[in-house]
Amino acid sequence: MDTLELAEKVERGDRRALARAVTLVESGRADHRAEAVTVLERLAKTGRQALRIGLSGTPGVGKSTFIEAFGMMLIARGLRVAVLAVDPSSARSGGSILGDKTRMDRLSREAGAFIRPSPSQTHLGGVARRTRDAVALCEAAGFDVVLIETVGVGQSETVVAEMADMFVLLLAPAGGDELQGVKRGIMEMADLILVNKADGDLKTSASRTCADYAGALRLLRKRPQDPEGFPKAMMVSAAQETGLTEAWAEIEALIGWRRENGHWQGRRAEQARFWFQEDVRQALLAQLQTPDARARMRALGDAVARGEMPPGRAAQDMLADLRAVSASSGK
Amino acid sequence: MDTLELAEKVERGDRRALARAVTLVESGRADHRAEAVTVLERLAKTGRQALRIGLSGTPGVGKSTFIEAFGMMLIARGLRVAVLAVDPSSARSGGSILGDKTRMDRLSREAGAFIRPSPSQTHLGGVARRTRDAVALCEAAGFDVVLIETVGVGQSETVVAEMADMFVLLLAPAGGDELQGVKRGIMEMADLILVNKADGDLKTSASRTCADYAGALRLLRKRPQDPEGFPKAMMVSAAQETGLTEAWAEIEALIGWRRENGHWQGRRAEQARFWFQEDVRQALLAQLQTPDARARMRALGDAVARGEMPPGRAAQDMLADLRAVSASSGK
Ligand SMILES: Nc1nc2c(ncn2[C@@H]2O[C@H](COP(=O)(O)OP(=O)(O)OP(=O)(O)O)[C@@H](O)[C@H]2O)c(=O)[nH]1
Ligand SMILES: Nc1nc2c(ncn2[C@@H]2O[C@H](COP(=O)(O)OP(=O)(O)OP(=O)(O)O)[C@@H](O)[C@H]2O)c(=O)[nH]1
Ligand SMILES: [Mg+2]
Ligand SMILES: [Mg+2]
Repeated sequence: MDTLELAEKVERGDRRALARAVTLVESGRADHRAEAVTVLERLAKTGRQALRIGLSGTPGVGKSTFIEAFGMMLIARGLRVAVLAVDPSSARSGGSILGDKTRMDRLSREAGAFIRPSPSQTHLGGVARRTRDAVALCEAAGFDVVLIETVGVGQSETVVAEMADMFVLLLAPAGGDELQGVKRGIMEMADLILVNKADGDLKTSASRTCADYAGALRLLRKRPQDPEGFPKAMMVSAAQETGLTEAWAEIEALIGWRRENGHWQGRRAEQARFWFQEDVRQALLAQLQTPDARARMRALGDAVARGEMPPGRAAQDMLADLRAVSASSGK
Repeated sequence: MDTLELAEKVERGDRRALARAVTLVESGRADHRAEAVTVLERLAKTGRQALRIGLSGTPGVGKSTFIEAFGMMLIARGLRVAVLAVDPSSARSGGSILGDKTRMDRLSREAGAFIRPSPSQTHLGGVARRTRDAVALCEAAGFDVVLIETVGVGQSETVVAEMADMFVLLLAPAGGDELQGVKRGIMEMADLILVNKADGDLKTSASRTCADYAGALRLLRKRPQDPEGFPKAMMVSAAQETGLTEAWAEIEALIGWRRENGHWQGRRAEQARFWFQEDVRQALLAQLQTPDARARMRALGDAVARGEMPPGRAAQDMLADLRAVSASSGK
């Protein structure tokens, strides 16, 4: 199948073609990369835009359970839902996140759903580009909502927030001084905090946790992109499927306001600029990842470590090498 | 003065020549950079090595006061002391750190001391390289101890630890739940924690804080580069000049052990390799900092933000441009 045909099938919403296109954007091969750019460029012309929701939370907070329940609720409303993941640990685990498709048993069997695990990659920069491209493919394929999941361990939330229209933080009910557990930086990124597991015995502590966070959010500086009352903290139970329609109503209200007030397009524009810059930086650094460059870096690094060469001189040698390679390859 | 003469004067310990050489390594100009590399390479042959001590602490904890008192104590022992700074905020403030030479009034008038404020730079990568080069110059000039100060606000501690033989964290006595204030990552970098201001009314709380941190340090995983009892927490008073000789004794014990057990050289070797790699990365990214490249990045970024071009395509255009420039410049 050539790239034109692939792009057309994706545009018609063909899920197998979409899966194939995602594989293409995930590939590290240069020819695949060139094809991917062509496909993405064709599909950019569709002008379709989904609602991109970033979702994060610590392990066990209930992300998978929530996505299953929330996704099914959206499907019931006639919306098409794609689920992607940015897994900061995939370098080690080989892409474990969303490997638990079993936890999204119902959703994965829906015709209106597309679930894709995180690509295994060695660094977050690479995962970020691939996920972002996958988001663009899902949009072109006509999905209405794209959920981008990440485990909350630091840097990956920022990456997800940089490619989403809004950021949802999932929390668990807590006993003691739970506010300590969430980094201020992460809280400042959140548009909506959902305290999950607000059911059974946990309901009381969920309610307290929710009130604590609502209070903490009020202390944050007001951002221009927030309507009155946002960011907001709410309770949900992914297991009991309660609070989900209320959460969706808040999301719609927030996004509606942002669209009307120019913040939605403004954010997308700045994100596109950011990713362009990031692509350029990553590509410049990628020169160091060829087998030859790695071998040379290792050899020079050894000489530096043995004290035979100052770091600055070795760096100059390495850069001269890279220039010679790029000159002789005629690029 | 040519580079040879400059290098010779630095090697003889001439402080004015040293100041000039530091200015050279701080310069952004390409010809200065080339001269700096030549000077550094010449001076690397001296094989001199100072004890490099990284020092960090939040604003107001007493870093300047401590450096003055500690430095004077070292001077009294016949040691030559250089003080450098890595200021993460210098992009904004234009290099405020150690601008308070007045706080180091006595030390700055000593013939055996050299104090240099942080260079004003736009990014930490650049500051890091310049400070590291300045450290090498101070070593070649025969200083025995090089103190590298930074305000503790996150990333800059890591940079300082990466260029020091050991890392000292300065803390203030605290009322309540102070342990919360120090990031776990920062504590894990510390070889020695000094609770400052252990004098007057503050002595009791200093003692409690010190015990708290000693306890916390015991909970950390043992590192191969630590002798029995390290990392360690101690009390000092920079104002009253108490605890300083004790702190120096611990530093000497730690460094002596590391030297004997190969950790000192091992750490230096790995640091040199790290800085070589970092130099290469920074140089690759520096291509984006020429006026032409910045203008082109801005124009392409605008097109991307307006939605006229996908980020990936714009990145390819930019990279093609950079290749054309480097090909035509014959480099
Ligand atoms: N009581 C209760 N339990 C829940 C709820 N949501 C999830 N759980 C339980 O919490 C556990 C973890 O749920 P997951 O959905 O796998 O959590 P996760 O955030 O995806 O975890 P990782 O994939 O490991 O990061 C499971 O045992 C779920 O059954 C809820 O709303 N209420
Ligand atoms: N009581 C007491 N006060 C001290 C001590 N050391 C410093 N101070 C006081 O603490 C204040 C801050 O001291 P500095 O040395 O300027 O602190 P710093 O960490 O350099 O601060 P920045 O440069 O702003 O990051 C001053 O008022 C000092 O006089 C000490 O050992 N005991
Ligand atoms: Mg999960
Ligand atoms: Mg100071």
